[in-house]
Amino acid sequence: MSRFFSSRYTALTPYTPGEQPQGRKYIKLNTNESPFPPSPGVLKAVTEEAQRLQLYSDPESRLLREALATHYALRPEQLLVGNGSDELLNFAFMAFCDENCPAFFPDITYGFYPVYASLNRLPYQEIPLREDLSFCLEDLPDKKGTVFLANPNAPTGLAKTAEEIEQLLQKRRDCVLVVDEAYVDFGAESVLPLIDRYDNLLVIQTFSKSRSMAGARLGFAAGCEALIGDLNTLKYSTNPYNVNRMTAAAGIAALREDAYYQANARTIMENRSYTASALCDLGFFVPESKANFLFARSSRIDGGRLYRKLKERGILVRHFEKPRISDYVRITIGTLDQMKALLHEIKAILKEEEAWNG
Amino acid sequence: MSRFFSSRYTALTPYTPGEQPQGRKYIKLNTNESPFPPSPGVLKAVTEEAQRLQLYSDPESRLLREALATHYALRPEQLLVGNGSDELLNFAFMAFCDENCPAFFPDITYGFYPVYASLNRLPYQEIPLREDLSFCLEDLPDKKGTVFLANPNAPTGLAKTAEEIEQLLQKRRDCVLVVDEAYVDFGAESVLPLIDRYDNLLVIQTFSKSRSMAGARLGFAAGCEALIGDLNTLKYSTNPYNVNRMTAAAGIAALREDAYYQANARTIMENRSYTASALCDLGFFVPESKANFLFARSSRIDGGRLYRKLKERGILVRHFEKPRISDYVRITIGTLDQMKALLHEIKAILKEEEAWNG
Repeated sequence: MSRFFSSRYTALTPYTPGEQPQGRKYIKLNTNESPFPPSPGVLKAVTEEAQRLQLYSDPESRLLREALATHYALRPEQLLVGNGSDELLNFAFMAFCDENCPAFFPDITYGFYPVYASLNRLPYQEIPLREDLSFCLEDLPDKKGTVFLANPNAPTGLAKTAEEIEQLLQKRRDCVLVVDEAYVDFGAESVLPLIDRYDNLLVIQTFSKSRSMAGARLGFAAGCEALIGDLNTLKYSTNPYNVNRMTAAAGIAALREDAYYQANARTIMENRSYTASALCDLGFFVPESKANFLFARSSRIDGGRLYRKLKERGILVRHFEKPRISDYVRITIGTLDQMKALLHEIKAILKEEEAWNG
Repeated sequence: MSRFFSSRYTALTPYTPGEQPQGRKYIKLNTNESPFPPSPGVLKAVTEEAQRLQLYSDPESRLLREALATHYALRPEQLLVGNGSDELLNFAFMAFCDENCPAFFPDITYGFYPVYASLNRLPYQEIPLREDLSFCLEDLPDKKGTVFLANPNAPTGLAKTAEEIEQLLQKRRDCVLVVDEAYVDFGAESVLPLIDRYDNLLVIQTFSKSRSMAGARLGFAAGCEALIGDLNTLKYSTNPYNVNRMTAAAGIAALREDAYYQANARTIMENRSYTASALCDLGFFVPESKANFLFARSSRIDGGRLYRKLKERGILVRHFEKPRISDYVRITIGTLDQMKALLHEIKAILKEEEAWNG
């Protein structure tokens, strides 16, 4: 820390992203990336767009927003795109929370929420998940506050139905509900169709997971025109050209080739079922995931130890050194071959543990 | 504005970016883009990197920072890359100003500075430029505060020497000086070589102008390790994967092909001389620009009127509806053909005006 750093931020604890090893090749199941490359049209669009890099991107990202609007049966005015969904989540914390309007979110959820709240010096309250890691909407405090709900939740994978979320929207008409649907394409229900009916609903999605574009950085926010207008005020006060030309072109191409990504999502859901069953057979507790990852705990090995043993064997999963979930590892669902390799190593590790303990 | 927007931001006036017309084709001399496309290696690097878009970018942008470090004789720890330099400027306002440390900058400079100050609710003081649009460093208040100095300044194009800036660094050892060198490659002196000697110096540059990458969004900040550490704390609390894979690859390739960009910068400087002389011959007042634009005023036509007349004739320049500079237009330097077309239209417009007035 320099002697000049503003006292506003000296106590800030930044987010810790998952490891991105640059050297040794791992089977990488730690940051919920897609195992599938982008579709051919994306490559073509990027190559073509790169020839115009000397010109600024359209700050309104009009073509991309029109493509999203068509795809999701929304209007372009109901959409804002961002440099990944993280940027948009930060804008949502800035726009819809303040001293008089705290943020509410589960105690176990996307680890960035408390960071955004701290960064913006916002009051927040973490609502404890139940013992089975489920989030009970009745546990939300009955007072003013903006709710941030990852659905499916991370790292648990558990999802709420659209009906449950609609009930919450009705109950809290005077508060914004931000639904972070980063993982929604792997079997959960999106609440995008509710946007026309609720002026208190903001939905945030990403192209990082189901659309194989984590490295392109593209997310979008959808909500009524007024909510999107507020986020735009912040965007135009921070970084008007937040989405670069290549990423915008890639996004449009990916929407055009949606069938490819839907097929990939189905494959991942199949591989998830396969892996969940196999882990259950090995005695793991695995909450029912609607995301492209599984959260799993075994009474035979501690989460941190399993993470380290797998890493030694060339497989990266994610472990959170955090109360209540340090027993677990979060495993991204990859190809069937990757899942088989994972299960093979887990079996070997459990056998080693037994030999050791026995 | 929605009924939910935080009162923190309701009075915020966002930055207005230059027009990015999506329909009619203009000779576009309004946003200081390069008239030259990116170099062949950039296209190749982007196409290759797009095949790995399903994987997150390296949050440390290690390879790009190493390439920058080699290029500028710095260490990677002295560098941070961003999604355009705008993002990094915002981080610098956040990190190095607060209630007790105001921001100081000229009253006529990059229009985003007061927006960043307002966004972060920071006190700031605008130091008036002298009558000839020069910024006199002695006019800075003799008290604590972080100075933001665009060098060359925008939209005037006037530059300070490295020696003048070093004197300021020495005089204000207990305050950070942020030197925004967005336009430095067109004939001004960079203070990057001073970084090892001054722990209060932060330099910010962009790939948008001299490196033909406005549409890729890439900027970097350079300073002592502690200053960069502070900016990293903010980056990892906002958007750890702020630079996407394609842009990082493009940046590395552009540094490798530096000769191409240097040649382009020389061409632009030649075209600038040509255009400045021609404008002077037409009676314009043109401060000596070290940037890829000219700021020009004619007593024969008001800035707003000249802007509109040029737009009717298919040429976009930038006009600022702002006290003291509303007489001027800012003209990006393009190819020689573009400059000739501009001068042709200006002559015709001036003739029309004369006929009208006479």
